[in-house]
Amino acid sequence: MGRKAIVLLSGGMDSATALYWAKSQGYACHCLIFDYGQRHKKEIASAKALAKKSGSTFQVIPVKFGWNGGSSLLNRRKKLPSRRLDKIGANSIPSTYVPARNTLFAAYAISAADARGAEAVILGVNALDYSGYPDCRPNYIKALEKTARLGTKRGIQGKTLRILTPLIKKTKAQIVELGAKLRVPWELTWSCYQGGAQPCGRCDSCRLRAKGFQEAGLHDPLTNQ
Amino acid sequence: MGRKAIVLLSGGMDSATALYWAKSQGYACHCLIFDYGQRHKKEIASAKALAKKSGSTFQVIPVKFGWNGGSSLLNRRKKLPSRRLDKIGANSIPSTYVPARNTLFAAYAISAADARGAEAVILGVNALDYSGYPDCRPNYIKALEKTARLGTKRGIQGKTLRILTPLIKKTKAQIVELGAKLRVPWELTWSCYQGGAQPCGRCDSCRLRAKGFQEAGLHDPLTNQ
Repeated sequence: MGRKAIVLLSGGMDSATALYWAKSQGYACHCLIFDYGQRHKKEIASAKALAKKSGSTFQVIPVKFGWNGGSSLLNRRKKLPSRRLDKIGANSIPSTYVPARNTLFAAYAISAADARGAEAVILGVNALDYSGYPDCRPNYIKALEKTARLGTKRGIQGKTLRILTPLIKKTKAQIVELGAKLRVPWELTWSCYQGGAQPCGRCDSCRLRAKGFQEAGLHDPLTNQ
Repeated sequence: MGRKAIVLLSGGMDSATALYWAKSQGYACHCLIFDYGQRHKKEIASAKALAKKSGSTFQVIPVKFGWNGGSSLLNRRKKLPSRRLDKIGANSIPSTYVPARNTLFAAYAISAADARGAEAVILGVNALDYSGYPDCRPNYIKALEKTARLGTKRGIQGKTLRILTPLIKKTKAQIVELGAKLRVPWELTWSCYQGGAQPCGRCDSCRLRAKGFQEAGLHDPLTNQ
């Protein structure tokens, strides 16, 4: 048995790239996929397909938050933002923000790492070409890692427990380049918040994805262009 | 509307005392109660009754962990520990430990605080007369608070977001004294890990509870002594 890692897998291109990066580092990966009422439920099927394709184990965890409505990512009656690219992430938190989502999902992963003897929790968060969520920044990840170490059996026994964020300082184009190098099956990923038959091409997530492929000079198999 | 707080309510005497303490501080409390497969499911009914009695709102959140078995608190085929009192918490982590439970439950509370505009998350954790779990210590709570502030909209906007642990440095006897002063309805609380009709009197949780009432010189209405 090699080193184990718990990977948070959303089905999007970032977490898919993080999964393939983890494999390239020699980790045996167990993926956690969350069903939390996201309107793009379609990404769950993508995440499962990605986990299988990569030869990783996985499980889907249902999450019911301690509040209702709020985020436009969960509430279909709210309008999804489609901002100019230069506005995305620019010190404003969009309506798609799900309160403390990364903290909650990472907590599940920390618990799984402690129980399964995994030495790393791997998150595909990105603080450059991102949507402006607070829980994607390096100082947040550092605090989370400290919390993980102090709050687990594994951590206080002095065993390795790291929160790894291989994409945190990469541009979307650099993520596309890394993913291409690692042979991430882009056709299995899903980014669009709408979760329709085809990507809408207008939401923040579609725009960031398109920017990444365009700047990397690569073709996105999910688009017909 | 006064100040709001999210309270993690287990149904035990510590979280019940923390809830009544929060009320005494003027917080309007919303309680989160977790159904996570604990063998003493009975505590969920206690928690609901306590929330109602205190005039607080509450909700039960189902939690499915990203691992199976493991903790004797979840697995009925495992034996519950019943150690000598001087061994409880003495640098050993008991089999009842649920990996990163406090981090996970606190993450739900942090999310709820961010969504509901609450300025505090209140935990009944205790680092003196406790079971030896790693996620009950002051330096852990400090790291958790930092994670909460850096990882939420509320936090990065500079609004108050605190993790309050009013019992962390109290002995079990001091908790009983505080609870008695705050008129905590002890008859509604539940501590025993077994979850039978009557407290078993032998598990770590029963022993710590008995020690508290005994040292405070008060009668526990759950016992017939």
